[in-house]
Amino acid sequence: MKYVIVGGIAGGPSFATRLRRLDETAEIIILERHSAISVASCALPYYLSGVIPDREALIERTPEILKEKNNIDVRLFSNVTNIEPAKQQLTVHDTLNNETYTETYDELLLATGASPTLPPIKNLDQADNAFVLRTIDNADAMKEFIDINHPKRVAILGGGAIGIELAESFNTLGLDVTIIERSSTIASPYDQEIAEVVAKELRKHDIKILTGHSVASLDNDKHELQLDDGTTLTADMIFIGTGVHPNTQLAANAKIALTDTGHIVVNSRFQTNQPHIYAIGDAIETINYITGLPTPSVLSSPANRQGHLLADIMVGAPFEYQGIVGAGVSKFFNLTVSYTGYTEVMLQANGITDYKKIFITPYDHAYFYPGATRVNFKLIFDTQGKILGAQAVGKTGVDKRISQISAAIRGHLNVYDLPDIEVPYSPPYSSTRDIINIAGYVAINQLTRQVATIKAADIAADILTSAYFLDIREPGRPESGSIKATANIPLSQLRDRITEIPKDKPVYITYRAGIGPYNASTILKGQGYDVTLIEE
Amino acid sequence: MKYVIVGGIAGGPSFATRLRRLDETAEIIILERHSAISVASCALPYYLSGVIPDREALIERTPEILKEKNNIDVRLFSNVTNIEPAKQQLTVHDTLNNETYTETYDELLLATGASPTLPPIKNLDQADNAFVLRTIDNADAMKEFIDINHPKRVAILGGGAIGIELAESFNTLGLDVTIIERSSTIASPYDQEIAEVVAKELRKHDIKILTGHSVASLDNDKHELQLDDGTTLTADMIFIGTGVHPNTQLAANAKIALTDTGHIVVNSRFQTNQPHIYAIGDAIETINYITGLPTPSVLSSPANRQGHLLADIMVGAPFEYQGIVGAGVSKFFNLTVSYTGYTEVMLQANGITDYKKIFITPYDHAYFYPGATRVNFKLIFDTQGKILGAQAVGKTGVDKRISQISAAIRGHLNVYDLPDIEVPYSPPYSSTRDIINIAGYVAINQLTRQVATIKAADIAADILTSAYFLDIREPGRPESGSIKATANIPLSQLRDRITEIPKDKPVYITYRAGIGPYNASTILKGQGYDVTLIEE
Repeated sequence: MKYVIVGGIAGGPSFATRLRRLDETAEIIILERHSAISVASCALPYYLSGVIPDREALIERTPEILKEKNNIDVRLFSNVTNIEPAKQQLTVHDTLNNETYTETYDELLLATGASPTLPPIKNLDQADNAFVLRTIDNADAMKEFIDINHPKRVAILGGGAIGIELAESFNTLGLDVTIIERSSTIASPYDQEIAEVVAKELRKHDIKILTGHSVASLDNDKHELQLDDGTTLTADMIFIGTGVHPNTQLAANAKIALTDTGHIVVNSRFQTNQPHIYAIGDAIETINYITGLPTPSVLSSPANRQGHLLADIMVGAPFEYQGIVGAGVSKFFNLTVSYTGYTEVMLQANGITDYKKIFITPYDHAYFYPGATRVNFKLIFDTQGKILGAQAVGKTGVDKRISQISAAIRGHLNVYDLPDIEVPYSPPYSSTRDIINIAGYVAINQLTRQVATIKAADIAADILTSAYFLDIREPGRPESGSIKATANIPLSQLRDRITEIPKDKPVYITYRAGIGPYNASTILKGQGYDVTLIEE
Repeated sequence: MKYVIVGGIAGGPSFATRLRRLDETAEIIILERHSAISVASCALPYYLSGVIPDREALIERTPEILKEKNNIDVRLFSNVTNIEPAKQQLTVHDTLNNETYTETYDELLLATGASPTLPPIKNLDQADNAFVLRTIDNADAMKEFIDINHPKRVAILGGGAIGIELAESFNTLGLDVTIIERSSTIASPYDQEIAEVVAKELRKHDIKILTGHSVASLDNDKHELQLDDGTTLTADMIFIGTGVHPNTQLAANAKIALTDTGHIVVNSRFQTNQPHIYAIGDAIETINYITGLPTPSVLSSPANRQGHLLADIMVGAPFEYQGIVGAGVSKFFNLTVSYTGYTEVMLQANGITDYKKIFITPYDHAYFYPGATRVNFKLIFDTQGKILGAQAVGKTGVDKRISQISAAIRGHLNVYDLPDIEVPYSPPYSSTRDIINIAGYVAINQLTRQVATIKAADIAADILTSAYFLDIREPGRPESGSIKATANIPLSQLRDRITEIPKDKPVYITYRAGIGPYNASTILKGQGYDVTLIEE
């Protein structure tokens, strides 16, 4: 049996090596249009900054190794220009020797990935100082430009993970960095509470952030960027990190069905609509494991998993892909930021609005052991308690808790299960009641509590002038909430001073941080008060 | 309703504070015989060493705070000496004022915990330099002894977690430390592969380890310990960490049913056999969540969880405790060692022998990003793939992966699910195919592979002299396995040199590390060889 794989970065080699383990006699060919396979794309920002000095280290497997260890025929600089499904053959352009030939296949795998999308900026096509970062060749080009031209100011278009990682890389190299982000917050897909912490960290390292702006045109002679509001910005280097699109023109030409977003349509066994043609990785649309909704496959870990699984499927295993949870982590200077499943941003993009959320800021390990820092942790769940996603930011212990939630999601656990998940405890690592346990308790309280809640904006004008607004924060704690309180009675004094609160008025608790407001409502309800918590 | 709680360290305060949130009008009394409640017992080794300098920091909640914030009546130095279930009352000895009084209850909770067990060592009862560590008073006594007597050599009896943590504490204080452990390995309940790594780390820090020995008697004048083999050891301070027993004499006297091991028998709602009497924490026997087998409840996290859950149950929630997974983590110098679920040691103690295991040593994060170190990771599962436990040791990322497995166990996931658990990937944190994914793949291979395996000890004598024993390790790699190979053909050369191997003899692969032997067997079987892998 002859297997041909188009694309050798992540899913392709994973498929090929697994297949070899399962079938010693298969003929396996990988066709890769670039100069290397098995590139650690996520490491490119660290290669650029010099944190990873060794270029060879970025290439996890060379064609020689795959030949020797796995008997796989890897062909670099091999651009597939056409597929003829009916004939089970393809046209390959060997760009190194500028030769074109035909290759046949019994089974074909498209692992063609995605490429950076260039935004519609006037004169961008003539800029010689604008870069993207997807391949090791891109990284080499950027390094060379910096070595020769010694740029001082760099503009980063797009404030997502890659933009922020590059901001750090350029900052490490001593450049002055400005991030220009079209939307109102950076660090997509994180929600605002998390993104704000990231933005603060970046500003602390002198990185400038311009949100709500995009670039309209370039003046390449003056090294100027004209923004959408007419202002200009000088930058002698430009990095574009505004998104990617799937590499599926080849598939489209072969009449392989695509979605509206240009992703290849596959079933749960990675079959396209064309016989003997499969697809995996960033080029496909799959389903979300949590909701079953269609979602593009992104990132290298799922691609790697899909490649391995497809090899099993192809040799006859009765497996089906169950979909992607979606999980990410980034190191932004001294912060770790991580998510699994859905953020609010993602839910809203999918039209899902019927969800609950909690936000807590416990310590990463026992507060009495040296070095404890707070983790900003957000959990999102549906009205039945099903976990939809989690995200966190902090200095340590962040990826650990998000990884745990990722496992919990895979096990279909819900918030009622979180208090029962055992986090190994010792003061340097965790707390007896650890972050995910607390998240569970707070989420359960929110789902089961009898106390009413209202959003500040929804409070009627007559209530605003007649009700009793109680601020229960302790002395010295910062204010929270937008509504001015009638009185401040710290929670610790509430039982003793409860008679100060009139019983004939509805009581609204203005302070919003932590579990305190729930405890206050319990105390007040226990004494017959009509209590409502104000939510943002 | 009047609730009385005996014991105020972990589960007791957790129960009391949760109950207060649920019932503003309840009368809640905690009776604690020692000088403090809510003590962070696990932090005591760090208090001793000075890593945590502040004694107050160890007490998470004072009686004053519980009174003010939660309206709970906490009575220290209050030793309950008798329970009369029929009258719903108890006798309390106020040891501070030497007064005795009777207290009534509507519902009684026993959270009496466990205490160190003293081994039967002659003259131990007369030693003034022997200590245990369970309470803050114990820690104070040890600190005082060190300050006054300046001991130089300390003997630690018992090489479990507490013994090793204390070894580090004493080492930090400049003492010469010897650990004496009765069994053949330290670091119980970890298995040998993990324990060996720990022992090596301890020896690197000049801690002496005597395994397979116990102390028979003391010569307190000479500061000598006589071991079971007649040899002696000089030590001017002794720490005893040889185990604990549940504090259940009070329960026994009240005709509360106990197990053979002296633990209180409770149902899934923490009810004892006596009406209106409940028990939680280290004093009880519960069930193991994975196997359903009876198991003592240990450690503070489960106690904390049980207290919270019982409060919900007592006010009418339809909850039941589903049992304990069991999870631990320790910092031993520069190592983190952690487990969840069963180790082999535990399984064998429970008479379970029908299990599988894999042992892998991947990097904690992408090998090409600075600072990558290897994690020794062991996964144990049953013949259907159900996860029974995991344990790991390494410098970083250990607790993260064990926490993930802990969540996976809670979700009843098995090894077939592990490749699908998404570990957020970025080079500083993980690998595209992360540790738990690899563990899943290797475990699945073991469950599904067709290749035969045999233990070295089970190979018949005539096979040893007639078969072909193939060592497939690459040049420069250390040898593994106890059987001398007929030839060394590195895996990378196996396809090219396969004709060197005679087809008329059975082939046994001697090298045991990693996935290589499985790959070699695939290659050989593909060419018609009769292949068997040798397992340890």
